[in-house]
Amino acid sequence: MPDLSVVQYNAVDNIFSLTVATMGAAALFLFMARGHVDPEYRPALLVSGLVVAIACYHYFMIRHSWHGAYALADGGYKGTGAAFNDFYRYADWILTVPLLMVELVAVLRLHASKATSLLTRLVIAAALMIALGYPGEVIADPARWNERRIWGGLSSIPFFYILYVLWTELTNSLESQPPAARKLLEIARLVILVTWAVYPIAFALGGTPEALAAKAGTADAAAGIVGAKGVVGLQIGYAVADITAKAGFGVLIYLIARAKSTKTSASEAYATA
Amino acid sequence: MPDLSVVQYNAVDNIFSLTVATMGAAALFLFMARGHVDPEYRPALLVSGLVVAIACYHYFMIRHSWHGAYALADGGYKGTGAAFNDFYRYADWILTVPLLMVELVAVLRLHASKATSLLTRLVIAAALMIALGYPGEVIADPARWNERRIWGGLSSIPFFYILYVLWTELTNSLESQPPAARKLLEIARLVILVTWAVYPIAFALGGTPEALAAKAGTADAAAGIVGAKGVVGLQIGYAVADITAKAGFGVLIYLIARAKSTKTSASEAYATA
Repeated sequence: MPDLSVVQYNAVDNIFSLTVATMGAAALFLFMARGHVDPEYRPALLVSGLVVAIACYHYFMIRHSWHGAYALADGGYKGTGAAFNDFYRYADWILTVPLLMVELVAVLRLHASKATSLLTRLVIAAALMIALGYPGEVIADPARWNERRIWGGLSSIPFFYILYVLWTELTNSLESQPPAARKLLEIARLVILVTWAVYPIAFALGGTPEALAAKAGTADAAAGIVGAKGVVGLQIGYAVADITAKAGFGVLIYLIARAKSTKTSASEAYATA
Repeated sequence: MPDLSVVQYNAVDNIFSLTVATMGAAALFLFMARGHVDPEYRPALLVSGLVVAIACYHYFMIRHSWHGAYALADGGYKGTGAAFNDFYRYADWILTVPLLMVELVAVLRLHASKATSLLTRLVIAAALMIALGYPGEVIADPARWNERRIWGGLSSIPFFYILYVLWTELTNSLESQPPAARKLLEIARLVILVTWAVYPIAFALGGTPEALAAKAGTADAAAGIVGAKGVVGLQIGYAVADITAKAGFGVLIYLIARAKSTKTSASEAYATA
């Protein structure tokens, strides 16, 4: 791990804590707000709550790993030799990306057969995307740059497939949704496109020959990118993207479910929540 | 404990963390999804949730014990002298194996008298299986290899009895189940057969004369198997089997209960959740 200034170390540490708080609060909200929406939308909120609960656990552990990877020395932070464990992110993605697909499909309320087919394709693509990305992510030898690019390229195929399917399905479903939900679904479409773009960019930044050379030289493999600014920028970028793509997206799912609910008056809702 | 490379140590550490997250998320899901099914299936989901909640706790403690058993030294991980506590697994089995029987019998909705008789036989067999396996598991003296084999053999009798009873009961019950639940019950039957096979294989691998000789020589008793690859493979194998047999099985129980529910519109459901 590269040396960090006190300000740099704290910036990452604080954003991790902010993320834990946001994800935990979002989980409490989504679990308890189930009663505010019609029964058929409650599974979507339950699954949205699971996504942020899982992310809350992983950011707590990521922060713990961050504390273990650095120690205060000579007015700055130096690596302790313990690796900053980036696998927590992959573990988080393995669990939450398929669940994000489930929450979106659940709130759209498509026909059962269509929902099953759509979900099967999306979940398989998500598993492929993560499984193909990981072998590239752990390559730290500049001589194997092309290999890393190949894994990244292969992982991009299911990545773009997922984005294409989500975009077209959301666009197709707009017609059949009540007007109040339409605008929210357009926002959801945009949120997916923008926040998901962060992940391949970060992967690519960590895989240039210069980054890999520096990684191999400085044992900076775990961070996946070179230099103090790179580490700080990458960690803050991932955290902001995760807050938007998980907690922000979960709140959007709630608003869509609320807009589509016609039976549940909030009064009844609160009585049962 | 045998020396491990950083990659080997982290592989086990990461799979333990992934298991904690999966079990915890499954527990939240099963507790809160009770309202999605008819009232008579809610006890099955409650018990399924208890199984993964107990496993979540034990994997948290197993990971804690893993951290205590190893320390970073000379670019690798060496045993600290503290034993890796494998009793957590036996404690987990003592509590969760009988509960797994309960959740399965509860979702089948057999006649009360039949359910009681079946459950009594299964729970006694499960207790015998674990009680007879443990004295063999802790034998670390190669001179007592035959004794270990005898305990393993005795433990296998209730083990195969349980598998036989579950297989035949599930097969017999298929006729009386609604078509939507039948396919899921066939999957459940297969999941039990495949995931349960992991446990006696792991027990046998830890009990060959070579493994015992190495155990006695290197104080490797807690791991129950010799060599770095053995330890890593065994721990990852157990974790994957536990995720499938507990969290995966719990989701199957939910899907079966959902398929059999005819009364519950999710509305009434959440009122009681």
